[in-house]
Amino acid sequence: MRPDGREFDQLRPISFQSGIAPNATGSVLVSFGNTRVICAATVQEDVPRWMKYQKVGGGWLTAEYNMLPYSTLDRKQRDISTGRLDGRSSEIQRLIGRSLRAVVDLKKLGPRTIWLDCDVLQADGGTRTASVTGGCVAIAIALNKLMADGKIKTFPMKKLITGISAGIYQDTAILDLDYPEDKDASVDFNVVMTEDLEFVEMQGSGEEAVFTDEQMAAMLSLARKGVKEITALQKQAILDADQASLTDLKSLADSFKRP
Amino acid sequence: MRPDGREFDQLRPISFQSGIAPNATGSVLVSFGNTRVICAATVQEDVPRWMKYQKVGGGWLTAEYNMLPYSTLDRKQRDISTGRLDGRSSEIQRLIGRSLRAVVDLKKLGPRTIWLDCDVLQADGGTRTASVTGGCVAIAIALNKLMADGKIKTFPMKKLITGISAGIYQDTAILDLDYPEDKDASVDFNVVMTEDLEFVEMQGSGEEAVFTDEQMAAMLSLARKGVKEITALQKQAILDADQASLTDLKSLADSFKRP
Amino acid sequence: MRPDGREFDQLRPISFQSGIAPNATGSVLVSFGNTRVICAATVQEDVPRWMKYQKVGGGWLTAEYNMLPYSTLDRKQRDISTGRLDGRSSEIQRLIGRSLRAVVDLKKLGPRTIWLDCDVLQADGGTRTASVTGGCVAIAIALNKLMADGKIKTFPMKKLITGISAGIYQDTAILDLDYPEDKDASVDFNVVMTEDLEFVEMQGSGEEAVFTDEQMAAMLSLARKGVKEITALQKQAILDADQASLTDLKSLADSFKRP
Amino acid sequence: MRPDGREFDQLRPISFQSGIAPNATGSVLVSFGNTRVICAATVQEDVPRWMKYQKVGGGWLTAEYNMLPYSTLDRKQRDISTGRLDGRSSEIQRLIGRSLRAVVDLKKLGPRTIWLDCDVLQADGGTRTASVTGGCVAIAIALNKLMADGKIKTFPMKKLITGISAGIYQDTAILDLDYPEDKDASVDFNVVMTEDLEFVEMQGSGEEAVFTDEQMAAMLSLARKGVKEITALQKQAILDADQASLTDLKSLADSFKRP
Amino acid sequence: MRPDGREFDQLRPISFQSGIAPNATGSVLVSFGNTRVICAATVQEDVPRWMKYQKVGGGWLTAEYNMLPYSTLDRKQRDISTGRLDGRSSEIQRLIGRSLRAVVDLKKLGPRTIWLDCDVLQADGGTRTASVTGGCVAIAIALNKLMADGKIKTFPMKKLITGISAGIYQDTAILDLDYPEDKDASVDFNVVMTEDLEFVEMQGSGEEAVFTDEQMAAMLSLARKGVKEITALQKQAILDADQASLTDLKSLADSFKRP
Amino acid sequence: MRPDGREFDQLRPISFQSGIAPNATGSVLVSFGNTRVICAATVQEDVPRWMKYQKVGGGWLTAEYNMLPYSTLDRKQRDISTGRLDGRSSEIQRLIGRSLRAVVDLKKLGPRTIWLDCDVLQADGGTRTASVTGGCVAIAIALNKLMADGKIKTFPMKKLITGISAGIYQDTAILDLDYPEDKDASVDFNVVMTEDLEFVEMQGSGEEAVFTDEQMAAMLSLARKGVKEITALQKQAILDADQASLTDLKSLADSFKRP
Repeated sequence: MRPDGREFDQLRPISFQSGIAPNATGSVLVSFGNTRVICAATVQEDVPRWMKYQKVGGGWLTAEYNMLPYSTLDRKQRDISTGRLDGRSSEIQRLIGRSLRAVVDLKKLGPRTIWLDCDVLQADGGTRTASVTGGCVAIAIALNKLMADGKIKTFPMKKLITGISAGIYQDTAILDLDYPEDKDASVDFNVVMTEDLEFVEMQGSGEEAVFTDEQMAAMLSLARKGVKEITALQKQAILDADQASLTDLKSLADSFKRP
Repeated sequence: MRPDGREFDQLRPISFQSGIAPNATGSVLVSFGNTRVICAATVQEDVPRWMKYQKVGGGWLTAEYNMLPYSTLDRKQRDISTGRLDGRSSEIQRLIGRSLRAVVDLKKLGPRTIWLDCDVLQADGGTRTASVTGGCVAIAIALNKLMADGKIKTFPMKKLITGISAGIYQDTAILDLDYPEDKDASVDFNVVMTEDLEFVEMQGSGEEAVFTDEQMAAMLSLARKGVKEITALQKQAILDADQASLTDLKSLADSFKRP
Repeated sequence: MRPDGREFDQLRPISFQSGIAPNATGSVLVSFGNTRVICAATVQEDVPRWMKYQKVGGGWLTAEYNMLPYSTLDRKQRDISTGRLDGRSSEIQRLIGRSLRAVVDLKKLGPRTIWLDCDVLQADGGTRTASVTGGCVAIAIALNKLMADGKIKTFPMKKLITGISAGIYQDTAILDLDYPEDKDASVDFNVVMTEDLEFVEMQGSGEEAVFTDEQMAAMLSLARKGVKEITALQKQAILDADQASLTDLKSLADSFKRP
Repeated sequence: MRPDGREFDQLRPISFQSGIAPNATGSVLVSFGNTRVICAATVQEDVPRWMKYQKVGGGWLTAEYNMLPYSTLDRKQRDISTGRLDGRSSEIQRLIGRSLRAVVDLKKLGPRTIWLDCDVLQADGGTRTASVTGGCVAIAIALNKLMADGKIKTFPMKKLITGISAGIYQDTAILDLDYPEDKDASVDFNVVMTEDLEFVEMQGSGEEAVFTDEQMAAMLSLARKGVKEITALQKQAILDADQASLTDLKSLADSFKRP
Repeated sequence: MRPDGREFDQLRPISFQSGIAPNATGSVLVSFGNTRVICAATVQEDVPRWMKYQKVGGGWLTAEYNMLPYSTLDRKQRDISTGRLDGRSSEIQRLIGRSLRAVVDLKKLGPRTIWLDCDVLQADGGTRTASVTGGCVAIAIALNKLMADGKIKTFPMKKLITGISAGIYQDTAILDLDYPEDKDASVDFNVVMTEDLEFVEMQGSGEEAVFTDEQMAAMLSLARKGVKEITALQKQAILDADQASLTDLKSLADSFKRP
Repeated sequence: MRPDGREFDQLRPISFQSGIAPNATGSVLVSFGNTRVICAATVQEDVPRWMKYQKVGGGWLTAEYNMLPYSTLDRKQRDISTGRLDGRSSEIQRLIGRSLRAVVDLKKLGPRTIWLDCDVLQADGGTRTASVTGGCVAIAIALNKLMADGKIKTFPMKKLITGISAGIYQDTAILDLDYPEDKDASVDFNVVMTEDLEFVEMQGSGEEAVFTDEQMAAMLSLARKGVKEITALQKQAILDADQASLTDLKSLADSFKRP
């Protein structure tokens, strides 16, 4: 029934390729099928002006989301060409930052800012949830690096979080929509959950339709299944990146660069 | 327990004052307690350029949300002073437009655009849901006017919609948060529902916290109660405005202007 | 002769409704017939950066003027949509600020800034002069509040000022033009005067025509008559607002909100 | 009494150097003492989009005013560096355009746009009135050129206009203020008049002061004297430029360029 | 002598990884050592408005250059955050576009636009020349695709072009500077040449120094050596990409995504 | 052969008129035939924020380049009207600033900023090189003034620099192209050299063509000839301006203003 032959509750192949942006503190290229997003966490030894002004202690975490012009089927104009940040991008980057601040203890971070940049390399549905999922991994890698460098004493991330989409497509609840499904779905549901299946964010929207309690329950049930599977992959990716950096980060980066 | 003495499931006093902006096609000043928003629906006999270009038939509906500088306790700078649309405003106006397009049949509207402007006069929590609620009333009044003028034959609004907030405050689910509650709530939940209690939009967020299935269920239950009560008030407001316009719209406007 | 039947020297009905924006320090909804402007004065306990830099003592007063999108017969696009402040608005807000600085002793104000926001709710001619007139009342109310709070010792406003328009319409000088008159007038004359009939600002312009000394004299004579009448109304409005705030500001605000 | 020793009713030396910008249709460098402004009128064989859209016949005339960064004693930042048009410049260019449209018959101009650019090379008080005065000369030269080229049949400028400033300085009315006078004047008065001494625009402002009928009368009397003297100089400048162009425009331009 | 141990005339390891952005018509990730740039050529079946207006036949080619925020050692703010295109980026993208238009026959391209996007993933010196070099490959791949699809009959690219940098470092001419060398070089020389060693662009600059004829000759000689070596790699990359697409583009893309 | 009859190696008439902008510290109107540029150097007793932040000693020099709207045959829109700095202007002003910083010892300048403004009054080819050439003279005059005022002890300009263009026109190398030649040239070559014929900047570009070593050698040879001739004129201009300022700067300025 699904255009690409998946089961209604089946995720696309998901992978994490760490070290994609070596100048960032932690980075990962996350793929949900053909959706690919560069997630790069950069730590800056400073806090925003408003925090200094309001004398708020601890650190800050903020996200920026951007679709590269060639990520879509028709080329997308850069924001700087139109002179204004795309409304959809603004909404998504607010969601990403808010979600991650819910699980990072900013006091433990110390007077630093984590910039999480999510640049979509290829868009095939679910870029915002892929950004949350990959962004969590990139930040965990960056925090591991701060720990290894002795800059922080306690790991500030309380739990991992995962973003996943569900929807109602041809009257059936399905998991992890790709673009052809997303375009025809009557309801679009995005959830961010912790590894313990608590809610961090939930956003459901029927663009030209409404939905019922039963449909919501079905979508949430699928989302929980997805989060469990993805969390395991996230943990492995963080572990791999960390071991790689312990043994020989340099050689990994080199091998990546000249395959 | 609540700062203003309300029960956990009690709405603030809600009212609709129609005709606040006589040059709009339909307008209302909606109040949820001290939160007051000017909602003005203006009908333009034209459609956006992209609709002409893509040869999409029917009409369009779009919303703009703005906080007036004096609506907040500390003066809020105008967007034009900073040169960019506030990210939060951008997100809210997308929500308002999307919600209302779900219940307005754009084909029946004909080649017209409805601009819904929501300007917050006083902000005390729940401005986005008040905007949806008041915006629905303003558009219904405007559509009645188009019907009366013979411009459209069939009423294009399929159902009324209502926006309402709920949240977790001191570990308890409460309905219709005012600003002091909103500031301290651990979860912020905004729902848009039809008069038949179907979901149009739902957005839940724990800024520095997470939430459980049980808490979500409690908040949704409160939201349903609120929607039922508000829908009745919306219907009365539309009826009143319509009768007023039938008997003597001019004198109503005058009496409003010089009390 | 005049479209709405007024005498050549007759003002439209003028009223002031105070407390329209309770989060401002002082506010008023001023009406000149169908022209209605929200005037809100907000006091900020800080001065602009240039004053600190130049070590200028005392305070500052600045105005912002804006037409709400639904104030005009055809919807007016927001400035933020075009990305630039409308030239006419910029000119008007400079006039408003300059006029009020002429009668407010900024030394006595102390190191504070008064932001005067004038948002046009309905435009039917004379919005700039209504803004000056209502703005003066809003600032007086705000200054009374600063006095009552013990923040300032001496009342910094030296005199009241009034803005009024006159013009040449069908070869006759008339007072207080509404939009249909303004559109067809050959000369547009705007005057700001103190309660003692001194000039603060005068601006006369013949868009596609010129005018003579005699015509100017006739318009100034009408303006003086108008200022005298309006000043009396302004004084009463300030008095009423002040007494209201002394007895029961809260109940007034409530009654306004739910008539 | 005046800093530069002039009589109270004495103009600064005024001159017009035509041909300063040979690629414009008509141009002049106007000097009022040390105030020098490049005024260049460029004719474009097209009308603004709104005129086509509204099917207004005839042509259009618009002005742009700009202070070059090195025109002031302290370098003035370019508008493009701050990203927004300076409010004062916006106000002045609206005044210049409006004044000139009052005396140019746009129907006779035909479907063309006159762009009048006024760039201040050196600012020493009175730049806006110098711009109107020089701009009128530049446009007259440009219109003569259109006549000579056979593009228009009837001269579209009905009368010459002159801009001149007056003010109250040390309690005395004086004519044509330079910067040191302007800075200390209690009233700033700018007038635009036709060669027949009719008013086109008048703007009087007491920045931190008010003024009386008698003071206004004294300033207007000075302005009339100034306009008479300047009109004669404008006529001569237009005549000289025209004859120069008839005999040998090329050689004039060359001699200007390599003195 | 060189920080990374290279000979004075030795290039860094150079590689091309095609298919990095599958939604583009042709794309490549080019690496010059640690400098890595995503080059994506997207073909749009339309030409810019000015070409239609001026009735110019054929197609167009334009380039955009951007440093991703995490490409530099310190995070670089996005252009949209500052509201203006970085001057250096503007200069570089003009160079890239101009260089490639010199070797692409726009008539043969037909009424299409090639957008070449160059996004720097990691910056370690020479990003502009890497962009030209990789951009040429990406466009060649895109043109091969247009040929294969039957959209164009004749290959529009006349010759390959290569960008390469040279410089004077510690008084010696060296080839292909990395960032540590670039920072300390007294002369920075960038050359774009055809595969036949003709010049397309040359830009030499001594930021705080000057240079002689002899130094220029030495740098040009190195540049020629570099171009010869790089051209061979470019040809192989285009060939590989083309064969890959002939046999099984899909499987290549998959293998890239999940190594 | 050349449209204006010049020899292939002949410069246009070149002149420098100092004192064009008396409020600048040093200024000159430079003419290369019909190309005329106002070059004004303004010294500000402050350094950019980044220098303070990075604790860099000495001063700074920066350039801004702008084409006045009436400098071109068709009126050029102002940057502020489009809201963005023209890419070509941005590139040129970076070149001008970089070139002059190569010969001005910023340490000797002391904690000051030199702003060099280049506003093109008439454009007929070669505006960027005229700006460098005139800008060097304006800065030398300004530095002489700083010396005369005792603000600096040692002259900070190490050598004069000259900008000149060459090109390939109808297969022949020519010097100092005017606009008709520039438009048809197959190669555009701009060189900045010191008075000792060292290179400061060289930029060669074949917009729709390529060029050879021999052609480059021919253009460079012409450029050297041009630089020698222009340097002599620059020296005389600086000497004249300096003597003028010693004897009677005021009277010179007056005579300029009222010829």
